Amino acid sequence: MPGVFITIEGVEGSGKSTQLLRLSERLRHLGVPLVVSKEPGGTALGRELRRLLLEPHPSGEAWCPEAELLLFYADRAQHLHALIRPSLEAGKVVLVDRFEDSTRAYQGASGVPDSALDRLSELVLRRLRPHLTVLLDMDPETSLQRVEVRNLAYGAEFAETRFDQAALDFHRRVRARFLAVAQAEPNRVAVVPARDPVDQVEAAIWVRVSALLRSAGFAVD
Amino acid sequence: MPGVFITIEGVEGSGKSTQLLRLSERLRHLGVPLVVSKEPGGTALGRELRRLLLEPHPSGEAWCPEAELLLFYADRAQHLHALIRPSLEAGKVVLVDRFEDSTRAYQGASGVPDSALDRLSELVLRRLRPHLTVLLDMDPETSLQRVEVRNLAYGAEFAETRFDQAALDFHRRVRARFLAVAQAEPNRVAVVPARDPVDQVEAAIWVRVSALLRSAGFAVD
Ligand SMILES: Nc1ncnc2c1ncn2[C@@H]1O[C@H](COP(=O)(O)OP(=O)(O)OP(=O)(O)O)[C@@H](O)[C@H]1O
Ligand SMILES: Nc1ncnc2c1ncn2[C@@H]1O[C@H](COP(=O)(O)OP(=O)(O)OP(=O)(O)O)[C@@H](O)[C@H]1O
Ligand SMILES: [Mg+2]
Ligand SMILES: [Mg+2]
Repeated sequence: MPGVFITIEGVEGSGKSTQLLRLSERLRHLGVPLVVSKEPGGTALGRELRRLLLEPHPSGEAWCPEAELLLFYADRAQHLHALIRPSLEAGKVVLVDRFEDSTRAYQGASGVPDSALDRLSELVLRRLRPHLTVLLDMDPETSLQRVEVRNLAYGAEFAETRFDQAALDFHRRVRARFLAVAQAEPNRVAVVPARDPVDQVEAAIWVRVSALLRSAGFAVD
Repeated sequence: MPGVFITIEGVEGSGKSTQLLRLSERLRHLGVPLVVSKEPGGTALGRELRRLLLEPHPSGEAWCPEAELLLFYADRAQHLHALIRPSLEAGKVVLVDRFEDSTRAYQGASGVPDSALDRLSELVLRRLRPHLTVLLDMDPETSLQRVEVRNLAYGAEFAETRFDQAALDFHRRVRARFLAVAQAEPNRVAVVPARDPVDQVEAAIWVRVSALLRSAGFAVD
């Protein structure tokens, strides 16, 4: 497929959305054909799943770990089918805020065995992998503090999501799992220190992204 | 697990809901501790998935086959977790209108490979299987005619579901797949001719169910 597939990963508050916005503005300015999306919820149907995954249900019922895992992959299958694969086939650059490494990190840290993740990955992704994954790495103590500040700014109705309530210990395991993926696939995953000032993080990401796009034939200078 | 798990399967209009109602009334009358459910949608969260699976979405977007498959299994995982396993552990008889054989028949007939079904089955069911599956077998020509009559009786708003619109050819493949499962697992699956009058079908089902419950220590005579 002729396009370029880039994902951005990291614990909550590591700056994924901030950096994705900056990167996409820069690429648009350069005239790069671009699709920007996120998971869960990259499609109209996927947004229904996002709501079911992230918002508490009026019934009080909560998803069991297997159901949760399957819903994340259902969302991903639909996202690949309806948006990611067609955009890549059309030669576009596709930027996605969270992708499969988040499932590996979060569901893995919740106790889902790697074998289950591997099987679903094979079923849903087949051979497709991101060409580049930017892992914004930082300690969750600081990143969760950022989230608190951000949520206060948005007002109470955005202040609580399910994952934000999970304990710091959990987020430390998530971070370790992200780093384990990066260690296992150093060619795909670029670890970028995310505690630095926004401009500095942006510059570090640009070094990696611009090199990739240049090698793929896009004019980015 | 001390309970008894019975599923009822068959093409649309084969009489599953009709027979499940009769069977459950008979068992309640006999004082058998009973839980009656269906798939998709056996739990509060599952009903949200049922809606997303069976009703067209306002966006016009349709699920890709992989996403659809994963959603059926997510519904099943939740159903097992929240209702089926706890009821069996409490020693109840659990009657379910459609279960995994429907996924094998319908998604299989839509082109999902057996290997994908096997993997999801292993992930979601682990070792659990129904003790008895009643397969109501009949030609889809006649069964779909029954559905048309039934839907007319309910009025237009129930008259169309996605699967009812699928072609007769598809339903013939579905029937063949149900029969293939029955042939592969003759001890679990009882094939019951479903074109016979309702009372006769009911009697044939009762022969199998009463024998099973008797052997499980329930007083059913
Ligand atoms: N490098 C940085 N230094 C300080 N603050 C930052 C930095 N990057 C982002 N922030 C701030 O931290 C907060 C979280 O950033 P952002 O929303 O981009 O993170 P995120 O990774 O997308 O989080 P989530 O996983 O919750 O979506 C925001 O208020 C943002 O302005
Ligand atoms: N043995 C039978 N002979 C004639 N009509 C029947 C028989 N069993 C059921 N019916 C009628 O056929 C219609 C379909 O039956 P029913 O709703 O029980 O099927 P079903 O298998 O549950 O269908 P679906 O898959 O759509 O849920 C109903 O109107 C029902 O009254
Ligand atoms: Mg974000
Ligand atoms: Mg029915």
